[in-house]
Amino acid sequence: MKKIAILGLTGSIGRSAADVILSHRQEFQVVLASSHNNYQELFRLSHELAIPNLLLTNTELKSRITDTPENIRLYWGDSELSQLLAELNPDIVLNAISGSAGLYSSMVTLSLGIDLALANKESLVMAGHLINRELQRSAARLIPVDSEHSAVLQAIGSTPLSQVRKIILTASGGPFLQLPPEEFSSITVERTMQHPTWSMGPKITVDSATMLNKALEVIEAHWLFHKDYTDIQAVVHPQSIIHSLVEFCDGSLLAQLGFPNMKLPILYALSYPDHLISDLSSTNILDLPWLSFLPLDEERYPLYYLAVAASAAGGLMPTIMNAANEAAVTLFLERKISFPAIHRIVADTLNSQNNFPDPDLETILAANLETYSRIINDN
Amino acid sequence: MKKIAILGLTGSIGRSAADVILSHRQEFQVVLASSHNNYQELFRLSHELAIPNLLLTNTELKSRITDTPENIRLYWGDSELSQLLAELNPDIVLNAISGSAGLYSSMVTLSLGIDLALANKESLVMAGHLINRELQRSAARLIPVDSEHSAVLQAIGSTPLSQVRKIILTASGGPFLQLPPEEFSSITVERTMQHPTWSMGPKITVDSATMLNKALEVIEAHWLFHKDYTDIQAVVHPQSIIHSLVEFCDGSLLAQLGFPNMKLPILYALSYPDHLISDLSSTNILDLPWLSFLPLDEERYPLYYLAVAASAAGGLMPTIMNAANEAAVTLFLERKISFPAIHRIVADTLNSQNNFPDPDLETILAANLETYSRIINDN
Repeated sequence: MKKIAILGLTGSIGRSAADVILSHRQEFQVVLASSHNNYQELFRLSHELAIPNLLLTNTELKSRITDTPENIRLYWGDSELSQLLAELNPDIVLNAISGSAGLYSSMVTLSLGIDLALANKESLVMAGHLINRELQRSAARLIPVDSEHSAVLQAIGSTPLSQVRKIILTASGGPFLQLPPEEFSSITVERTMQHPTWSMGPKITVDSATMLNKALEVIEAHWLFHKDYTDIQAVVHPQSIIHSLVEFCDGSLLAQLGFPNMKLPILYALSYPDHLISDLSSTNILDLPWLSFLPLDEERYPLYYLAVAASAAGGLMPTIMNAANEAAVTLFLERKISFPAIHRIVADTLNSQNNFPDPDLETILAANLETYSRIINDN
Repeated sequence: MKKIAILGLTGSIGRSAADVILSHRQEFQVVLASSHNNYQELFRLSHELAIPNLLLTNTELKSRITDTPENIRLYWGDSELSQLLAELNPDIVLNAISGSAGLYSSMVTLSLGIDLALANKESLVMAGHLINRELQRSAARLIPVDSEHSAVLQAIGSTPLSQVRKIILTASGGPFLQLPPEEFSSITVERTMQHPTWSMGPKITVDSATMLNKALEVIEAHWLFHKDYTDIQAVVHPQSIIHSLVEFCDGSLLAQLGFPNMKLPILYALSYPDHLISDLSSTNILDLPWLSFLPLDEERYPLYYLAVAASAAGGLMPTIMNAANEAAVTLFLERKISFPAIHRIVADTLNSQNNFPDPDLETILAANLETYSRIINDN
């Protein structure tokens, strides 16, 4: 029985993880779960999954919650996480926190030498160099939960990374794959939310439409699999069946595929490197649509190219790019700016910033907060 | 430097192997090569590859050859193979002999404890149980060379076979995928030779058109990967880009893909489990056609279903099925029978035979010869 902590249980990935664990109660036991705000859903899920320890990171709720369920110990704030993880000593932490808020938990987990199943892209985007330093210091493993990186991990298997020539990430193309770019200024929040193949949270759904999400995944792949940015390619694959590919040094390609279903990469991350017997995901190859691949059009997805270029520069640039995008997406979801303005804001922010090499965690978190707040206040 | 023996150097696979080795002279050295009849081509290739030892299996040529090249030792007949392999002690034997004639060499290789790269399907079709017994007795490895089984091997990687739920072999569908079955009686040898995606020898090209080839591959997969026949599926994939797939017990699918090119599975078999740096095979995913999958139509490919059913019965049945097909294909290539008669002859032969459980090599070879000769003489 594997002991698991799920951080961000009430988000989209967290709830899928809850389903996975309910289907595999013999294999997994959740010893700790957290949420930022959504205590009602957290209590409900903790009852269903029999989770003895809960953490709410928004300490402002402290006064409001008077009805903590029986047999549950409730903890407060990021500050209690480290001690709690040290005490409970789970076999693996699933970090399903959304956005830059997830970085702290990743660092804490790895610093304790605990395996980290990572659904929080921002940890690697902002601090890939620090995460890798933590990994070198301990025997802890970093296991990706994104469907794309899970595909790459499965395709690589036990092959040495030196034999991997290229990583090819697939992208659905989002809801605006066919829309003429001159009509992008009329894009509404509602249309953006209509993702063609995956059902996800609002932030990542906007990022899929701008293709910024794929740039974040390129950065993740860079840090996870130690490949140069020039050896990581993104292609549009509108059917979202092939979740990513690996090209080996002899030219052979391996791909992981199946109908889109986040439960499979979550299960794989929790059971890695084994495949667990499961009926959560099932793909009859004869039911597949025709599969196709397209280049990632620069006119349609300028944010992708901007973000990858900024990230290849390293240092603080990925953090600033990511913070500017988080702020711009927030403004777009609040209907304060247009869809093309997301790209404009990120571009302007990157242009006005000087880089800073090898930043420490404090510098990263400060730059993240400063960039985000300034853009929100300016718009 | 790996020492290699190539049996059947002058056939289609053997010549591709020669190209592979010419491109990787730092890694591989051919210490022995054989051919049945084609001594001129064997001498030419031995010069190009600097092969010191040659073997001709057709001893009737002995009197005809007076011009053996310098610095070459020429050996004769299957009977000298065992001693020669024992003396030269290659790291791996590539068995690229065509048809049932290849079984003897596979058994000899494995009985000496030498790794076997197997392009000869018939070894496993006729004597999978004996091959596996040899493998259990020694540390020798059996590595498939067929593009389909190489794909499966790569997809499985180091995952335990117990975590593999299903093997899915792809088939191009051959030249008659679109032809109405009522027109099959008018099929000529010339049209049969026009395979849509692979360039291969005449026997296997006919077997691709009847889909018997895929049945042989199902049997191979059964013995290579220790899966029940019910866990091995064949699907039509007209583009021949995805070379086969593996479904794991959690529902995840891995596929190996690329433009059709036999040099890649040959290289992989020789370098297994490593991928060697090579420019022999290159696939830009953006150049791929749309990929599709179709069921294997029983009316169009009755020989596939007949052959798999016979093989699942085990014992001598796969040998008899294979021998009947070899004879029927010979007759078809000699224009003595029609295309649909291939199926009829195999069906009639299987119906008139009693099975024999756990046959030894002698019994298998006798049944093979007897079945083949009888059909040739009767037609």
